[in-house]
Amino acid sequence: MQIKPGKLLATIQEPQDLRQLDQSQLVALSQELRQFIIDNVSVYGGHFGASLGVVELTVALHYAFNTPEDQLVWDVGHQAYGHKILTGRRDSFHTNRVYNGISGFPKRKESKYDTFGVGHSSTSISAALGMAVASKYQGLDDKHHIAVIGDGAMTGGMAFEAMNHAGVSNSNVLIILNDNCMSIDPNVGALKDYLTDITTSQTYNRFRDEVWNVLGKFSKFGSSAQEVLSKVEGSVKSFLLKQSNLFESLNLRYFGPVDGHDVDHLVHVLNDLKKIPGPKILHCVTVKGKGFALAEKDQTKWHAPGTFDKVTGEIFKKVYDTPQPPKYQDVFGHTIVELAKQNDKVMGITPAMPSGCSLNIMMKEMPDRAFDVGIAEQHAVTFSAGLATQGMIPFCNIYSSFMQRAYDQVIHDVCIQNLPVIFCLDRAGFAGADGPTHHGAYDIAYMRAIPNMIVSSPMNEEELRNLMYTATLNKEGAFTIRYPRGNGVMPEWRTPMQAVTVGKGRVIQEGNEVAILTIGHIGNYAVQVCEELAKEGLTPGHYDMRFVKPIDEEMLHHVFKKYKKVVTVEDGCIPGGFGTAVLEFMADHGYQAQVKRLGIPDRIVEHGEQLELHNECGFGPEGIKQTVLALFESVHVPH
Amino acid sequence: MQIKPGKLLATIQEPQDLRQLDQSQLVALSQELRQFIIDNVSVYGGHFGASLGVVELTVALHYAFNTPEDQLVWDVGHQAYGHKILTGRRDSFHTNRVYNGISGFPKRKESKYDTFGVGHSSTSISAALGMAVASKYQGLDDKHHIAVIGDGAMTGGMAFEAMNHAGVSNSNVLIILNDNCMSIDPNVGALKDYLTDITTSQTYNRFRDEVWNVLGKFSKFGSSAQEVLSKVEGSVKSFLLKQSNLFESLNLRYFGPVDGHDVDHLVHVLNDLKKIPGPKILHCVTVKGKGFALAEKDQTKWHAPGTFDKVTGEIFKKVYDTPQPPKYQDVFGHTIVELAKQNDKVMGITPAMPSGCSLNIMMKEMPDRAFDVGIAEQHAVTFSAGLATQGMIPFCNIYSSFMQRAYDQVIHDVCIQNLPVIFCLDRAGFAGADGPTHHGAYDIAYMRAIPNMIVSSPMNEEELRNLMYTATLNKEGAFTIRYPRGNGVMPEWRTPMQAVTVGKGRVIQEGNEVAILTIGHIGNYAVQVCEELAKEGLTPGHYDMRFVKPIDEEMLHHVFKKYKKVVTVEDGCIPGGFGTAVLEFMADHGYQAQVKRLGIPDRIVEHGEQLELHNECGFGPEGIKQTVLALFESVHVPH
Repeated sequence: MQIKPGKLLATIQEPQDLRQLDQSQLVALSQELRQFIIDNVSVYGGHFGASLGVVELTVALHYAFNTPEDQLVWDVGHQAYGHKILTGRRDSFHTNRVYNGISGFPKRKESKYDTFGVGHSSTSISAALGMAVASKYQGLDDKHHIAVIGDGAMTGGMAFEAMNHAGVSNSNVLIILNDNCMSIDPNVGALKDYLTDITTSQTYNRFRDEVWNVLGKFSKFGSSAQEVLSKVEGSVKSFLLKQSNLFESLNLRYFGPVDGHDVDHLVHVLNDLKKIPGPKILHCVTVKGKGFALAEKDQTKWHAPGTFDKVTGEIFKKVYDTPQPPKYQDVFGHTIVELAKQNDKVMGITPAMPSGCSLNIMMKEMPDRAFDVGIAEQHAVTFSAGLATQGMIPFCNIYSSFMQRAYDQVIHDVCIQNLPVIFCLDRAGFAGADGPTHHGAYDIAYMRAIPNMIVSSPMNEEELRNLMYTATLNKEGAFTIRYPRGNGVMPEWRTPMQAVTVGKGRVIQEGNEVAILTIGHIGNYAVQVCEELAKEGLTPGHYDMRFVKPIDEEMLHHVFKKYKKVVTVEDGCIPGGFGTAVLEFMADHGYQAQVKRLGIPDRIVEHGEQLELHNECGFGPEGIKQTVLALFESVHVPH
Repeated sequence: MQIKPGKLLATIQEPQDLRQLDQSQLVALSQELRQFIIDNVSVYGGHFGASLGVVELTVALHYAFNTPEDQLVWDVGHQAYGHKILTGRRDSFHTNRVYNGISGFPKRKESKYDTFGVGHSSTSISAALGMAVASKYQGLDDKHHIAVIGDGAMTGGMAFEAMNHAGVSNSNVLIILNDNCMSIDPNVGALKDYLTDITTSQTYNRFRDEVWNVLGKFSKFGSSAQEVLSKVEGSVKSFLLKQSNLFESLNLRYFGPVDGHDVDHLVHVLNDLKKIPGPKILHCVTVKGKGFALAEKDQTKWHAPGTFDKVTGEIFKKVYDTPQPPKYQDVFGHTIVELAKQNDKVMGITPAMPSGCSLNIMMKEMPDRAFDVGIAEQHAVTFSAGLATQGMIPFCNIYSSFMQRAYDQVIHDVCIQNLPVIFCLDRAGFAGADGPTHHGAYDIAYMRAIPNMIVSSPMNEEELRNLMYTATLNKEGAFTIRYPRGNGVMPEWRTPMQAVTVGKGRVIQEGNEVAILTIGHIGNYAVQVCEELAKEGLTPGHYDMRFVKPIDEEMLHHVFKKYKKVVTVEDGCIPGGFGTAVLEFMADHGYQAQVKRLGIPDRIVEHGEQLELHNECGFGPEGIKQTVLALFESVHVPH
């Protein structure tokens, strides 16, 4: 159901309508836009604080620039709700993040205003620079290219790589640094301190002012002083312009800091900047959650709070009569603390996802042993490898899709050196409403290609705990444990930890004619299917392989001797995945069987709830059941 | 054969021997070490200029620090020859980069002085920081951790990620910036300009001096001026210390620039820095190739010149009577220029490998359409994606093993958006003497897991040209072309370009009983094998699949209908690779055959010549022949 927009906002279908407004109306429009976001997210959920923080900036950008001719790239994209609402998607905004609805991130397929699809951090400057270089080459000198990037995203290495190139490119790129000291969690690192320092005038502005003051005062000492003065002033000015600042060091003209909530001033500044060619950066200070008091106060909680009462601020949570299974991330978060208490070598590392992966529990209890290293997956992995060389046992927790960014470090710094680093890949499989940028689809395929690598996945909380404990006993090579977003299946999950044998699966049930081989949490669907089939008198075997690599060869010998029909099920890509590992075993050992591989197909799957996507791809409970049934039927007909 | 070291050098087995010398002897030792490197590399080949450039630094580091207790990480490792020679490997140094000899890069397995294996760029700060944090946690407060990183490697994003963390870590890390304005090719980008600016005092030092001078001069104006002065001086000083410099912005105390060839001064400075706790950076200016005039003059040519006459500087090249096949990289380099002349959308991108991938040809001819973006693979890919959004046709050329560093960008910025970016993966398969860090072993497996991705590999120069031309016609999704280091097979390689059908293989020969399916240049071994087998009256089929994805299903139907014994051959990892794609087809279409997959096994393969490594892994000509013969034999016995 559509939410009703305010009077001004109702008149705006596209940015050209916005550009018809008088500049004096922008404050009111911003207020309506903010309210529309609050009204929508409170009812339908989604990301919240980030978009509230850039309402004025969004209005000012579309007002000052000629979008979509001028090209606007939003880094990450959590903050682009206002942009979506002003660019033709106001009336479909209630379908945000819903299956078959609009995406929660900018997306090229969705709108010509979404010039570049985003989701992962720190890509915007590279993309905008590519656009700008192409425009320049095509003689489109009046075209503007704008990257809006947060101070958190700025810590991702590729942003620095892009600035290094932009600084010598002579291209028409404007980088807007949206400085709010937050990503999902509070930002960390030296860059954040530096930006805070600039913004709060502790050093930079005070120095600038004082030198100017002093130069002024000295002028009373007459002409000889004046002479020196003018000489120094030139040098000071050029110094301040060219070198006083990290961004100027990279040859990006630096402007700011400016108040990111003063829409009128922003429009002025942006119009001025349009006249300055070449690469430049505007430092905009904003408040995440701006205009919703609770969101300003607890910014992590209100990053994506779910639905809530927009008046009282009460966040709606389902209430259950009985204990519910925990989130896998919380099992990780509590278990690593338990392990660390038993073993003083255990350490935890997260690249900017302490609340997302629940390492925040350890960071609070053991701040000298748990590290948020910033949005920096590459560094996180090699830093972990460095810890491992000194005998530490690092648990490096990275979302599956973000681990793609540290693939080289996994190979080059961990596996080639056979160092014992533990990778916990949260959000493996379909991420759900975040969509294709966040689906952890490829990790089984890309991890199992690497030597000196164990790849495992738990079917439930107890298995996760056991695998984590087992990983601490591993002396050589990487140990990967992948698990999905969301909840497990065991309300009583604090089971005593036991080591499991690396490379050994579990028999869930012996059966006949058809075997189901599963990896990870998705195996619970197979349990459900087996229960249903039992009512029909059918008993497939079900084996939770637990390890993709090394795969349980003994179990597979048993399976292929006993069954001629096999279904493999995984929440990961079919090419090169777990099912394929089973095919490799089969070929290497000369078995012949009919193998049907279920998993994520070889196409981009959009957003939706996990079950919706599993069903779409044929490996929800119904899909598995139908596949197994078809195989049972085929046993009794010649093929 | 061992090269004879100089008198002083002969006394040094390990750094403790070095530390027995009087500091006054270090100049002479440095000279002997330099000569020993020249003597060795001129005879045995290897990397040259980088190690010459850090002779004094290497001597000073091992003299001032207590290695291996103090931990020294060399970024990339091209420059570590002096380090190897001083740390127990002088007498085995003539086996450098030879099969079964010592590695051309630092390697943990080889020596306790090699604290971290390297090869790829920009990892050293992360690794050293991990070590330092572990030391601090263990109470080893006196331990030093030193990362030696070039100004080129400093442009790689993960170095920035690591500095962002180091700056707030309060750990005992010393970063030595080895600033020589070069990586393999001259460095590019804003950072290089900035460092040059600092070093040549154009801005930074002049400003510093002038402000100091001025403050001095004003002192003659009496006490009121003095008062102001002292106030300003405090602010200026704190400003200069805290904020005047990119590295200080990141809370790294900056020292330098110092002359990296003054070994005596270096020892002094390093001893001073040992007393300063916390993260810090020493900016060392060096000359790549120092002490060998020709290498100083043409630094790219002398990065790894092969063997040469150390007196005349003549580089030895094999001389042939007949025209030889070109390097694949040169076919790429010339062909992209041809394509760009025909099609004004074609652009070329390389992350710091213009001479290594031969894009330098296009950069010279068409500087506005060919870009060296620095050591920045991630940025290179997303920048290419940005170009593609504007209708450009970007050829992004990245060595196979370096592409691991941009895996997320391939997925997230190219394939999810279905943008037509062409990836040319040079050095695919075994890299040869560079060893495991540089082997392009995994690309087939990791690339084919991604949707909207074409994966191809040419068997010869003509095919490379045809694939490149075909790729320019592709309108959606990524098009990967992988090819090896080294030479092709066609002396007359400038064939007219023809489009090939995407997903279509080539029949090399029809045969019977056994089929050989190959992908890429390695297929030429199979041609050789087929010729040999023909003499024995055996005719296997040979199919050059040309595409891994989409795979030629028509051809595979033909193969599996005709043959029950199949060998797949690839210069890539066996798990998840090309042979596995064939197994997937087989399973999906219900074929049954005996398939033997040849390729890079699931372990780390060390360095050596390509043929040596192919033979070791069983897919050199002899290995293929034996495998095919065994299958022929098995046809005629029951199994």
